[in-house]
Amino acid sequence: MCESAAYIIRDGKEELVLESIDLLENEDGHVRLVNMFGEEKDLKARVKALSLVEHKIILEPLQDVT
Amino acid sequence: MCESAAYIIRDGKEELVLESIDLLENEDGHVRLVNMFGEEKDLKARVKALSLVEHKIILEPLQDVT
Repeated sequence: MCESAAYIIRDGKEELVLESIDLLENEDGHVRLVNMFGEEKDLKARVKALSLVEHKIILEPLQDVT
Repeated sequence: MCESAAYIIRDGKEELVLESIDLLENEDGHVRLVNMFGEEKDLKARVKALSLVEHKIILEPLQDVT
């Protein structure tokens, strides 16, 4: 299998959000993550990058005003 | 390894964009894909979904006016 872990960038650092991710959905500024254990997370974020070699999903928080 | 293939949704159908993807970057409304053979594609699109079980990256075209 090749689940990946999702990280969100806060203060320039990657914080682990959820491991063993099977599914990611991105709608209306929300990213929904579901992992192989059925755990779910919903974040106000966008997909910044994806490294399938490193098994990493990188998210960036969405802010109304930046 | 666990490279995925990227598809873009056009007219409700999934069209293959690039296979064996190692890296995806998403900035300023552009998605850049790089595969394990060094091939690159740049699309005006967003990441709609990711199914790591199916090894699929689903993109959606970005349009200025919809």
